[in-house]
Amino acid sequence: MPFTTKPLKSLIADRIANRVVIIDQTLLPFAVERKILSSWQDCAEAIRAMRVRGAPLIGVTAAFGIALAMSKDATDESLFTACRDIAATRPTAVNLAWAIERMRRPLIAIDPAARPDAAWDEASKIAAEDETCNQQIGIYGLGIIREIYARTHRPVNILTHCNAGRMACLDWGTATAPIYLAHQAGVPVHVWVEETRPRNQGLITEWELAQAGVPHTYVVDNSGGHLMQHNKVDMVIVGVDRVSRRGDVANKIGTYLKALAARDNGIPFYAAAPTSSIDFSIEDGVPEIEIEERDRSEVAAIRGWDSNGSISEVRILKAETAVSNPGFDVTPSRLVTALITERGIFMPNQLAALATEVAI
Amino acid sequence: MPFTTKPLKSLIADRIANRVVIIDQTLLPFAVERKILSSWQDCAEAIRAMRVRGAPLIGVTAAFGIALAMSKDATDESLFTACRDIAATRPTAVNLAWAIERMRRPLIAIDPAARPDAAWDEASKIAAEDETCNQQIGIYGLGIIREIYARTHRPVNILTHCNAGRMACLDWGTATAPIYLAHQAGVPVHVWVEETRPRNQGLITEWELAQAGVPHTYVVDNSGGHLMQHNKVDMVIVGVDRVSRRGDVANKIGTYLKALAARDNGIPFYAAAPTSSIDFSIEDGVPEIEIEERDRSEVAAIRGWDSNGSISEVRILKAETAVSNPGFDVTPSRLVTALITERGIFMPNQLAALATEVAI
Repeated sequence: MPFTTKPLKSLIADRIANRVVIIDQTLLPFAVERKILSSWQDCAEAIRAMRVRGAPLIGVTAAFGIALAMSKDATDESLFTACRDIAATRPTAVNLAWAIERMRRPLIAIDPAARPDAAWDEASKIAAEDETCNQQIGIYGLGIIREIYARTHRPVNILTHCNAGRMACLDWGTATAPIYLAHQAGVPVHVWVEETRPRNQGLITEWELAQAGVPHTYVVDNSGGHLMQHNKVDMVIVGVDRVSRRGDVANKIGTYLKALAARDNGIPFYAAAPTSSIDFSIEDGVPEIEIEERDRSEVAAIRGWDSNGSISEVRILKAETAVSNPGFDVTPSRLVTALITERGIFMPNQLAALATEVAI
Repeated sequence: MPFTTKPLKSLIADRIANRVVIIDQTLLPFAVERKILSSWQDCAEAIRAMRVRGAPLIGVTAAFGIALAMSKDATDESLFTACRDIAATRPTAVNLAWAIERMRRPLIAIDPAARPDAAWDEASKIAAEDETCNQQIGIYGLGIIREIYARTHRPVNILTHCNAGRMACLDWGTATAPIYLAHQAGVPVHVWVEETRPRNQGLITEWELAQAGVPHTYVVDNSGGHLMQHNKVDMVIVGVDRVSRRGDVANKIGTYLKALAARDNGIPFYAAAPTSSIDFSIEDGVPEIEIEERDRSEVAAIRGWDSNGSISEVRILKAETAVSNPGFDVTPSRLVTALITERGIFMPNQLAALATEVAI
């Protein structure tokens, strides 16, 4: 990674101490606070409360949650309960179900006495794979950025939504890996960082890019279309929470609007997608992918620094105001230029062919 | 208006006292504070700082500003200075230039001694016309809502962006007039109120609709596309800041994204547009309409109630973070189903024919 000082890790698993240390992302970028997860219940709470977030990191946290469960009680019942309850924390990201299934299947087949070690091994493997996966996505994505630069000879303007960055993963990020690699390789880039209401994960992306010295500008979600209309965006790159067999992309609410604007202005729209986020059981993402409805408090209250520089919150809505807060939307595959995976760049209609290759 | 108690007026002109009383909209809905404007400079400041906002109200405030200028000093020079400096406060809304020109042209032609009275007469006329104009827009728009209800037999779901409501006008609002009339007539409606970052004018729309008892739900700007994909929106209706001859609509930043989503989902997209907001000198709105770039502080700080219920602000960005803050975007006419004006409903390509009719 192109950092002068070693950047913070979103998650560190400590097998000896039998615990996982995360950064509480609900406080980012206003405070960097570590939190120790000592049980699978702690992991489930961290996922539900979005102390860890981002599809890849959710999957890894779930895997370590199951390892923590096995360390404490390696029975079938314990495995079943941990898998079931962790899976129920958030419905949209498929990595969660994917990681749990990848843990459950080999564990249930072996002797309970062997499960704790096997579970830690497998969870550590999932975590390590996430890093190499994202680096591969970065290498493929870098090719796209280089191509644009070769054509335009000016800094490549990249718009991104939400945080599919280092904090959403174990390292690199999915959408940000190509950006970091380009920056490192001396290909000039500039990133439009979208705020991403209601939870303002754009603040985390801004914080990450500032640490790496990548030029960027923060904008509200409403601005993206205008920027594209005025030739200020060369490509859009976002992460994914779940991809259907035909390439429909579930991602943070508001992504679909940017895909529409990209199409309307002839700008390529890329989804950085580990193959683990492809759900081959789903064909048409719009009706079939369950969209999480989250708490109204995410919309009604906003966190920041007060005039003394302390972390503070303001409420913008009265308790009686009705709120709807869908967490994700689905971008139909017809709006997706290509998916950048760790196995290469695929058009949406090429995904189905991967089904047998990437089975767990 | 369908209110049980007399609702607040956005502006009251007091000719005897030679002053204008506004509600300081920068504090809405957190506090209702009146502010007295005693000079044209006060009016210019109120427009620039968005204490008054919304294209129609800006126009009326500018007109009364010129009346205040004439009351104090009715010379050509005073008229020239007031017109020039008020016009420079905000570049995008054409009603501002329109109202100033409508004041300037007759005033410059008459004896300075007659100007104060003539100016107050004309400004009052512009204000009165705004009310009847919006009511007419409401009547035409009501027809559209009735048609949808006759087809669906369920509450008509209307999505709106920003505040083109009572507070953006003298009364009724432009986009909200059809909604109020429908509610009054017993046609069931439900309004999706978009937050409208960075200034969250959706909070003002929410506050207005709550006062009138119109069912509504507050959503972040990112949600609109998802709601449309899932058949939860029957029509979109927004206000306008400037309309080109061919029907391109400049309106609050983010409007274009909702027009794209409406088109993608076969949902009609209406702009409620007084004919005074049509700029017949402009053909292609995207390159030709100047988009105001506003201060970064609008993005960086958010106002609300603190835990004690006092008005407070939190900062979400550090001082060194680069921000871009375009205030408006332009929705190309191809995405506009029709414009609802006080003279009837027009397809974008029918507007040019109005040019001679609506000349000042």
